[in-house]
Amino acid sequence: MTVSGISQTRLYVALVHYPVLNKHGEEIASAITNLDLHDIARVATTYGVAGFYVVTPLIDQQELAASIVAHWISGYGAVYNAKRKEAFANVWIKDNLDEVIRSIQAREGGCRPCTIATTSRTHDRSASFRLLREKLAEGHPHLLLFGTAWGLVPRVIRESDMVLQPICGPTAYNHLSVRGAAAIILDRLLGLQ
Amino acid sequence: MTVSGISQTRLYVALVHYPVLNKHGEEIASAITNLDLHDIARVATTYGVAGFYVVTPLIDQQELAASIVAHWISGYGAVYNAKRKEAFANVWIKDNLDEVIRSIQAREGGCRPCTIATTSRTHDRSASFRLLREKLAEGHPHLLLFGTAWGLVPRVIRESDMVLQPICGPTAYNHLSVRGAAAIILDRLLGLQ
Repeated sequence: MTVSGISQTRLYVALVHYPVLNKHGEEIASAITNLDLHDIARVATTYGVAGFYVVTPLIDQQELAASIVAHWISGYGAVYNAKRKEAFANVWIKDNLDEVIRSIQAREGGCRPCTIATTSRTHDRSASFRLLREKLAEGHPHLLLFGTAWGLVPRVIRESDMVLQPICGPTAYNHLSVRGAAAIILDRLLGLQ
Repeated sequence: MTVSGISQTRLYVALVHYPVLNKHGEEIASAITNLDLHDIARVATTYGVAGFYVVTPLIDQQELAASIVAHWISGYGAVYNAKRKEAFANVWIKDNLDEVIRSIQAREGGCRPCTIATTSRTHDRSASFRLLREKLAEGHPHLLLFGTAWGLVPRVIRESDMVLQPICGPTAYNHLSVRGAAAIILDRLLGLQ
């Protein structure tokens, strides 16, 4: 399968709205942000990501996400901007992470993806970008998890097969948007430099 | 001067709302997008960018940008999220690129910054990320120009001192958001990998 005529990876991305943390460290379901969907769909398409999953158990939020996707796939958006249609063609809405994994297994001939948590903090299992890049090159399916709001809850990080090292700039400030973090991480993993 | 206690570069960023192209290739002034300001301020702070300029000649758009900045610097936003306050503390609103350059010269002891246009297309003067990274390391001030809407007009690209090569993924799709492109470019230029 190809996107824009060139190669596609076996890396999948999930944008998680539950279970995530709020600013007080409490477990919540966050709201869908329209531009998260646009930006991550566009960056995922740029880097040949195999599928972009939006995860929320809230029915009204699933409906909101579905209406955004439908607008750009088959509504006026598809006429207005065919490039946006291409990006949204690979966006899938799921109730929870188990459903995402089942969906990937169905697409990958039963093969369970290796799950990779992302976080803005160093973790005792933090794996380097280089290591993950090498693992992706081996061809096994992987699923990269991005937490909205104040990030993935510790349980999701703990239960993931890998934890990716945080993005480091030359300062101690580490408060990127999830959109920005996803762009940088996909570029570090799949970009041609 | 330091941001979050660590090093700051002499790289400045301008988000240009005029003159840019619309989807028909016509010269326009685009509207401010709230999340452009948030995301680029956050990524600029992460990578120790010396200043983030928002460029628009439209008075109502300058007022909108100023109200967003004020909310996070001194309004309720500053109380709600001190990390966002830190990011917005280095955002400046200017009428045009000449004013941006004058402002940088004033901050840099009269030294004019080298201007670098960004574009999603290969240009006959395209310089590599590696070359620009090396130039930044020499310590001269540089100004990176990002066009909103469908990008910088050809005249701005032509008159820039350098043109940065486009971001390449493994596909032919090259329709990132300006927020996503800015995140990736600053990481490629200033990130610690």
